[in-house]
Amino acid sequence: MSPVLQAGTVYGLGLGPGDPDLMTVRADRLLRQARHVAFFRKAGRKGQARRIVEGMIPEGAIEHPMEYPVTTEIPVTDPAYNRLLAEFYEDCTAQLVALAAAGEDVVVLCEGDPFFYGSFMHLHLRLLDQVPVEVVPAITGMSAAWTATGTPITWGDDVLTVLMATLPEDDLAARIAQTDALVLMKIGRNIGKVRRALQQAGRYDQAWLVEYAAMPGQTVQRLAEAEDRVTPYFSIVVVHGHGRRP
Amino acid sequence: MSPVLQAGTVYGLGLGPGDPDLMTVRADRLLRQARHVAFFRKAGRKGQARRIVEGMIPEGAIEHPMEYPVTTEIPVTDPAYNRLLAEFYEDCTAQLVALAAAGEDVVVLCEGDPFFYGSFMHLHLRLLDQVPVEVVPAITGMSAAWTATGTPITWGDDVLTVLMATLPEDDLAARIAQTDALVLMKIGRNIGKVRRALQQAGRYDQAWLVEYAAMPGQTVQRLAEAEDRVTPYFSIVVVHGHGRRP
Ligand SMILES: C[S@@+](CC[C@H](N)C(=O)[O-])C[C@H]1O[C@@H](n2cnc3c(N)ncnc32)[C@H](O)[C@@H]1O
Ligand SMILES: C[S@@+](CC[C@H](N)C(=O)[O-])C[C@H]1O[C@@H](n2cnc3c(N)ncnc32)[C@H](O)[C@@H]1O
Repeated sequence: MSPVLQAGTVYGLGLGPGDPDLMTVRADRLLRQARHVAFFRKAGRKGQARRIVEGMIPEGAIEHPMEYPVTTEIPVTDPAYNRLLAEFYEDCTAQLVALAAAGEDVVVLCEGDPFFYGSFMHLHLRLLDQVPVEVVPAITGMSAAWTATGTPITWGDDVLTVLMATLPEDDLAARIAQTDALVLMKIGRNIGKVRRALQQAGRYDQAWLVEYAAMPGQTVQRLAEAEDRVTPYFSIVVVHGHGRRP
Repeated sequence: MSPVLQAGTVYGLGLGPGDPDLMTVRADRLLRQARHVAFFRKAGRKGQARRIVEGMIPEGAIEHPMEYPVTTEIPVTDPAYNRLLAEFYEDCTAQLVALAAAGEDVVVLCEGDPFFYGSFMHLHLRLLDQVPVEVVPAITGMSAAWTATGTPITWGDDVLTVLMATLPEDDLAARIAQTDALVLMKIGRNIGKVRRALQQAGRYDQAWLVEYAAMPGQTVQRLAEAEDRVTPYFSIVVVHGHGRRP
């Protein structure tokens, strides 16, 4: 009979916004000791989380790329999209559970903070009652974005609203008009809608566009001065608050 | 004649929520090389930022505590409050500028992320055109709080609203009713108002109270089960979003 095997732990390892120097001491240590490193990527791409840790994965560690079956080819409103993704997450979960059951720890690389609009959350909720899971928090992309603008995001009792650019334009405009400070994420091809919503809310001239915050190629500019710009996936729009300041 | 002296840099050093293991690699390195370490504290207290780095300040480094002249003794609406604080920030700035002008780097310890409702922001805006300043972003208290609950804060296109408990009750209730995910900070003696606003908005039963996130003494409980609890300054209330999840 084999001795009782201690299950391994699956780590949702927050890497922060991009610069490895902005990883936590804990994430840095867990990564450098890892034997199994899993990460999401689009087919044919390197994967952003994997790119952040280039050169940091220990020799001999096994990499487990998890390739998305669909990303932008099918609209998110199509039921087929949900079905395909759910199956994919089930498969990934099964793979991670098998490793943990064999006593192996696995780190799952997560861009930014894992619990803030992260893909790992879809695995987390499936892993929870099967194997030990630990989440290591990290700096969000938005923190890197407002830091890059050189201006604080919120003062005193400013209200901060975080919006996804995938929301309908009127919804965006109404919420933008009501907040002090603003963060807009998931911009990419929604940039036209974002501009119109900001204009409708009268905040367009206060908006900053940050591309690739804390990544190679970071840019910071007023949105109004970035006309006709095609914004990449890693873009954030920021409007600073102006609350109480003695 | 003395040679031209290169000015030192003032670093707004984000330490993250409390656990030194959650500091960034960059902050850890800058701190361990520091010759001058400044931090805010209340008179007679150690100071939370200073407490986080206990045992990490290199031998021989000079500590510069900056003691608040007022905190909760005078209401924030009293003009005297603003005047006293402004003078205090001017004095601290002068001290940091003098060090930098003498060629010394100084790290200013910041709890959480410096540009997110941080005290360092008041120095930053006064230092900016006088000496080189660099801000090192960090994990916010709210990231540590939602991580501590074991449940992701936002999914899909959830709206996240961050509110300070110092806002008027009706304002809080109206905004709480309109958001998917919620973070409430600066709770302390505003806890009664926070409870009433959450009840008014019909979200009381979904609210979690996290005290001392990622600090010694961390607690996580449903707010409704923490009746009569006196909440400390380092408390955050969280309501999780429930957006799209395949
Ligand atoms: C699926 S969400 C993941 C958020 C991530 N978990 C975080 O904590 O920031 C992806 C969106 O985050 C934003 N984002 C994250 N990191 C970024 C960075 N370093 N620079 C610019 N945008 C970033 C972009 O708006 C992107 O569309
Ligand atoms: C002046 S704000 C500073 C926020 C800080 N710069 C950050 O990034 O989180 C102070 C408030 O932040 C919240 N806070 C910050 N860190 C916390 C922690 N580790 N645990 C609980 N609350 C925290 C509390 O609500 C507190 O009243």
